[in-house]
Amino acid sequence: MPPGHWEVLSRQVLVDAPPWLRVVQEAVRLEDYRTVIPDFFAVELQPHVIVFPLLEDGRVPLVEHYRHALRRVVRELPAGGIAPGEDPLECARRELLEETGIEAKTWVPLGAFCLDPNKGCGEAHVYLALDGRQVASPDPGDLAVQVLHWYQREAIRGLWQSGGFDSLSSVAAAGLALSWLDAHRPSA
Amino acid sequence: MPPGHWEVLSRQVLVDAPPWLRVVQEAVRLEDYRTVIPDFFAVELQPHVIVFPLLEDGRVPLVEHYRHALRRVVRELPAGGIAPGEDPLECARRELLEETGIEAKTWVPLGAFCLDPNKGCGEAHVYLALDGRQVASPDPGDLAVQVLHWYQREAIRGLWQSGGFDSLSSVAAAGLALSWLDAHRPSA
Repeated sequence: MPPGHWEVLSRQVLVDAPPWLRVVQEAVRLEDYRTVIPDFFAVELQPHVIVFPLLEDGRVPLVEHYRHALRRVVRELPAGGIAPGEDPLECARRELLEETGIEAKTWVPLGAFCLDPNKGCGEAHVYLALDGRQVASPDPGDLAVQVLHWYQREAIRGLWQSGGFDSLSSVAAAGLALSWLDAHRPSA
Repeated sequence: MPPGHWEVLSRQVLVDAPPWLRVVQEAVRLEDYRTVIPDFFAVELQPHVIVFPLLEDGRVPLVEHYRHALRRVVRELPAGGIAPGEDPLECARRELLEETGIEAKTWVPLGAFCLDPNKGCGEAHVYLALDGRQVASPDPGDLAVQVLHWYQREAIRGLWQSGGFDSLSSVAAAGLALSWLDAHRPSA
């Protein structure tokens, strides 16, 4: 029997806080057409973008801020939620400008990926932003205080390879971006 | 003001389905000591492992199965939930054996990363499993039917670079594993 689809027998919304969060419980019949699971949970989170920005002068910014869900201060690539109806690339341009003051001439989409295949949890859209310049002061408008830290590309590679990022999205984006850069813009 | 911590004023559990899922709503006071947010949501998911297995003969298996939260069939690296109290590496050995029938001689931990810095969503522990051999038939015991597909390392690289994986955890694990292999086990 090849992988198939499951039939939804009933559906109950347990938490409904759009656009941030929706939690759904479903009763489902599996692809064997017999087994019924009464409590399949799915989590819907706001989709987000994550951006690997490379400035013309070779620097890459990381954002340091407190993340309350983790109870600690983390450093990650610039990221932010996609507003309802917003185009992912437009969101990436907006978030990069807000969080870092950077405008980039060249944008490379590196894919869109779910956070958790089992629960869903929304999608991350990954971008590489090239030929960037800082044109404004950061104005993140986020709940948490943020501080920017600047790295050279090879320092980012070291951080990535040594498990130094906190989030899967930063790890995924850094890996894809460095691979693209190695192929298309080798270091001097 | 440097990044600080938030104070929890109240806490309500909205969904409690251990070990799969817990959703919490908190009222929090921010690091400015003034602003109060009444509805900060955090999502706790079961932590999981994800494994990049490389066999002695050079092949890498991907697992194809239906993921109901995504409503589609996906291919990803072997992965699975960490049971309460289970050691992550032991879980990785168990899941690899169950899903693929592979035992690996050499295990390289590549880091542990949160799924979403904003909501938490649990942690992914990433491993590279080297010098593997298929010693048994797969016996995944998963709800969904699964099929194994075998790839050469460079085909996995192509899939990774072209956005061909579905989940952030597969993208993150593939990138870290390929980078480690390039440095320590260059292709013949």
